[in-house]
Amino acid sequence: MKQTNAFVPTLREVPADAEAISHQWLVKGGFIRQLSSGIYSLLPLGRIVIRHIETIVRDEIELAGAQEVLLPALQPAELWHQSGRYEIYGQELIRLHDRHGREFALGPTHEEVITSLIEQEIKSYRKLPLTLFQIQTKFRDERRPRSGLLRCREFLMKDAYSFSADWKDLDRIYDAMYAAYHRIFQRCGLNFRAVEADGGAIGGEGGTHEFMAIAESGEDIIVTCNTCDYAANLEKAASVNTSVESGHTPSHSQAVGQMERFYTQDLRTINELTDSLGIEASDLIKTVIFIADGKPVAVLVRGDHSINETKVKNALQAIHIELADTETVRSITGAATGFAGPVSLNIPLLVDFAVTAMGEGITGANETDYHIRHVVPGRDFTITLAGDYRNVLEGEHCPCCSMGTLKTVRGIELGHVFKLGTKYSEKLGATFVDSSGIEQHMIMGCYGIGITRLMATIIEQHHDEHGMIWPVAIAPYQVHLIPVSMQDQAQSEAAEQLYKQLQEAGIRVLLDDRDERMGVKLKDADLIGLPIRIVVGKAISEGLLELKERRSKEPAERIAVTEIAAHIQVLLGK
Amino acid sequence: MKQTNAFVPTLREVPADAEAISHQWLVKGGFIRQLSSGIYSLLPLGRIVIRHIETIVRDEIELAGAQEVLLPALQPAELWHQSGRYEIYGQELIRLHDRHGREFALGPTHEEVITSLIEQEIKSYRKLPLTLFQIQTKFRDERRPRSGLLRCREFLMKDAYSFSADWKDLDRIYDAMYAAYHRIFQRCGLNFRAVEADGGAIGGEGGTHEFMAIAESGEDIIVTCNTCDYAANLEKAASVNTSVESGHTPSHSQAVGQMERFYTQDLRTINELTDSLGIEASDLIKTVIFIADGKPVAVLVRGDHSINETKVKNALQAIHIELADTETVRSITGAATGFAGPVSLNIPLLVDFAVTAMGEGITGANETDYHIRHVVPGRDFTITLAGDYRNVLEGEHCPCCSMGTLKTVRGIELGHVFKLGTKYSEKLGATFVDSSGIEQHMIMGCYGIGITRLMATIIEQHHDEHGMIWPVAIAPYQVHLIPVSMQDQAQSEAAEQLYKQLQEAGIRVLLDDRDERMGVKLKDADLIGLPIRIVVGKAISEGLLELKERRSKEPAERIAVTEIAAHIQVLLGK
Repeated sequence: MKQTNAFVPTLREVPADAEAISHQWLVKGGFIRQLSSGIYSLLPLGRIVIRHIETIVRDEIELAGAQEVLLPALQPAELWHQSGRYEIYGQELIRLHDRHGREFALGPTHEEVITSLIEQEIKSYRKLPLTLFQIQTKFRDERRPRSGLLRCREFLMKDAYSFSADWKDLDRIYDAMYAAYHRIFQRCGLNFRAVEADGGAIGGEGGTHEFMAIAESGEDIIVTCNTCDYAANLEKAASVNTSVESGHTPSHSQAVGQMERFYTQDLRTINELTDSLGIEASDLIKTVIFIADGKPVAVLVRGDHSINETKVKNALQAIHIELADTETVRSITGAATGFAGPVSLNIPLLVDFAVTAMGEGITGANETDYHIRHVVPGRDFTITLAGDYRNVLEGEHCPCCSMGTLKTVRGIELGHVFKLGTKYSEKLGATFVDSSGIEQHMIMGCYGIGITRLMATIIEQHHDEHGMIWPVAIAPYQVHLIPVSMQDQAQSEAAEQLYKQLQEAGIRVLLDDRDERMGVKLKDADLIGLPIRIVVGKAISEGLLELKERRSKEPAERIAVTEIAAHIQVLLGK
Repeated sequence: MKQTNAFVPTLREVPADAEAISHQWLVKGGFIRQLSSGIYSLLPLGRIVIRHIETIVRDEIELAGAQEVLLPALQPAELWHQSGRYEIYGQELIRLHDRHGREFALGPTHEEVITSLIEQEIKSYRKLPLTLFQIQTKFRDERRPRSGLLRCREFLMKDAYSFSADWKDLDRIYDAMYAAYHRIFQRCGLNFRAVEADGGAIGGEGGTHEFMAIAESGEDIIVTCNTCDYAANLEKAASVNTSVESGHTPSHSQAVGQMERFYTQDLRTINELTDSLGIEASDLIKTVIFIADGKPVAVLVRGDHSINETKVKNALQAIHIELADTETVRSITGAATGFAGPVSLNIPLLVDFAVTAMGEGITGANETDYHIRHVVPGRDFTITLAGDYRNVLEGEHCPCCSMGTLKTVRGIELGHVFKLGTKYSEKLGATFVDSSGIEQHMIMGCYGIGITRLMATIIEQHHDEHGMIWPVAIAPYQVHLIPVSMQDQAQSEAAEQLYKQLQEAGIRVLLDDRDERMGVKLKDADLIGLPIRIVVGKAISEGLLELKERRSKEPAERIAVTEIAAHIQVLLGK
């Protein structure tokens, strides 16, 4: 492609709203443009990158045994009622009515549609197992679309769904997908980890892993062990039972004084309390009120711990969970926010294991400006449900090997694999007759990769202060061919000739034939980040070119015109 | 692909709602399934075919100089207000609100989005011309989705848009697209014609052609000349001015009797009148009341002619036009339907040239059960606007060469090319600074191809009573390899070996390794219609196979195993 013809609207300014690195570079490099919040157009360079990613994904997913389909975005709302997700999905599910008043959802995912398809088409174990996939546009009305392509309202996804007659087949397909995902992200040049994950609204009874790219800008926190292979999303990572670890002996055996209410004017936060009272955060019991599916519950964790809402939600088997607002807290506790406590609180109390292991603690008094000390779990309040409700902390012991300690790092979710089991086949009646003639529900799995997010994530990992650095397999073009001056006949002729020669050798070349200053051309070249840059300058009179790899910090190398093609082939690994 | 693994749910029964041939075969052959009215899932064979079509389209459109993008389906409603099409598109435009109450349209086409993109990115003639295209899902809430993939509410389209600094460049791009369309439809094996077309709601001031596949099931009527190259959509085809052709001398010079009202009880239709009165249909003047953008107009055509609503709409520059209902007709004419006439009718009268050329005629009397004879156009009623408001008839003279006569044939619209001019660039403010420093509106063109419709149209032209007959370039697989019995070791081994050998030679093979009766296998093979069928039967003991081309009526041919690959290569034109 010649750059005078190419639509590559590079910018010199970073767009004001772009915080994520990938968002900045993709907009500056002319790869994408925003149409509306969380809705982007892919411009030609972006489209080419996405096509390369699509090709890699399609290759590997087909190798894993899946067949490609294309399912509609317009999905009858009845299907979502049938699966029970019409309500669960909440405002993220975009709804609309057709001209006859019939309600549709714009597919944020396709479990409903594909299960209903398979329910109609497959009746016998003989036709199982079956895995279908598609690369298709998804719609999710995110509350806060952000970071460019990292969290969009309209985006490309590869979603695959497997149907099998037994769990053994599901395990086999799951493993094949798991392996395919590794190959895909490797081919995309990513530094990633598969981690244990929480099933969320989509989940079923089986396992689930997320594939996480390690990146500062990630929304997720990944917990890993420094000794064993353990890796999990913070949402999921189990904390080791603190009653053993903390060295506290169980509280009930100790002689502890009676509860004592005391004045703590304006001491609302853990920090205010520890600073003012000269105590440790771990001496405090934090009481937080949530509304779970409309009903209030209190969650108690130690003052130095943070609540893991996913764990709370799962323990309650709740669909929605949110922090209670100030008004609700006041009506339940009778006190301002910051002074809630478990004593005499007439709502269910979910108590974290680390709290049950405390001999005593300081809690809010359910009275503004008052706390209580010497509160003994089980003696002074009833534990409705003890459990693991907190986020693990860096440095804690690994829940897997118990030997190592945990570290955390931020990550971007690239994909996930789920063992759904019979969750959807039961709701949508997808049954088959097994080899003994008995009707059974199909065992399902689902497997997603965010295609547009993948493009952004590659940039998060591959860039420098001058712009993007595309891996060869993904780059929109492999070689950026830049004559210093198109006015110079020797240079322009040599460039044109090399352009043809490289293309004939199957190399994708962008020829910067623009009548721009060299500074502008080099700035754009660094910005759009093609793997190999060839400059045709004055040295062409001696038969020499300059070659530089975008990722390299070394200065450009002089290479003879006669050797350049072979040299490039080596660099491209051809 | 081995058929035991492939998801190809063939059916023995024609689906009850499928009228169009392509709809029947695509459903029976397991290529598509309906999710909702006008909304289909592409199953694996359908998806492969669409990918082949996409590849052909992408190839040729890129050769024509266009660059691929991907634009959002979710489009802010404001853009549609800006272009003025928010109202025009009517119920076909699917509208929805996001969680913040902001209104969006689901893109039925992308003139608004792309013009707004280019408006922001291109300011100078130096960056023009530019042509961008995408292959993307479109949404149109059709009043009557029908014929399977021929008229859908969600479908794949290739849409391209060109921006240029002058009309000369537009003409050049238009011609390149026109040529690319010819190559695309040729490569798809279609019998088609480019015809002059009407611009419709999308149109601009320039020309427009439709590419029509000749097919009985087509919704469109194509008019062609038996002498010259003239071909037009019936909507567009101009009628030769009948005042010259019909031999009538202009009416006003003739001595004609005065108007005479007469009793015509229950004679409402042209047929009832001609039968009862013993006259010719061409002696009658038909008066039909329309509501154009809310206002009534009457259109007058000769009794043997039919009204062309597109011509009427264009003459009025109306957005919406529809037949007046019975109540409206009564309130305007004072009579029941069937007795409307132009005399003393106080609404605009659009009079077809063939009527202006009549010396006199019989019209309704605007009184139930009465007509008037000796009505002279211009004498007895005022002509608001004379024009060509009728459909041409088969056998009429060609409006182009005047020598040949016209024929009609039905067609399916495969694609269209439009010279939009400045219609959208004016509405959306897409300007550039020309080489003299003057700000001008960009000159636009747009170019569409219905990708999913193309698949259906190929079937409309390529099928027989047993099923589909795929052209080689489009077929999901090129060879259907069928062992008579997989239980027979010699047959199954030979089949497996040939399967590998052909795949290694780059041939796409479907191996029917199912444990089914030969009758079932052959029926399915005819149904899904792969170009070449190879049967491995008993003759394999003598080293012989049976080869049959799907399109051929000849019996299968015996060919030696050693020669089969070369033979297939020849048939595939490799």
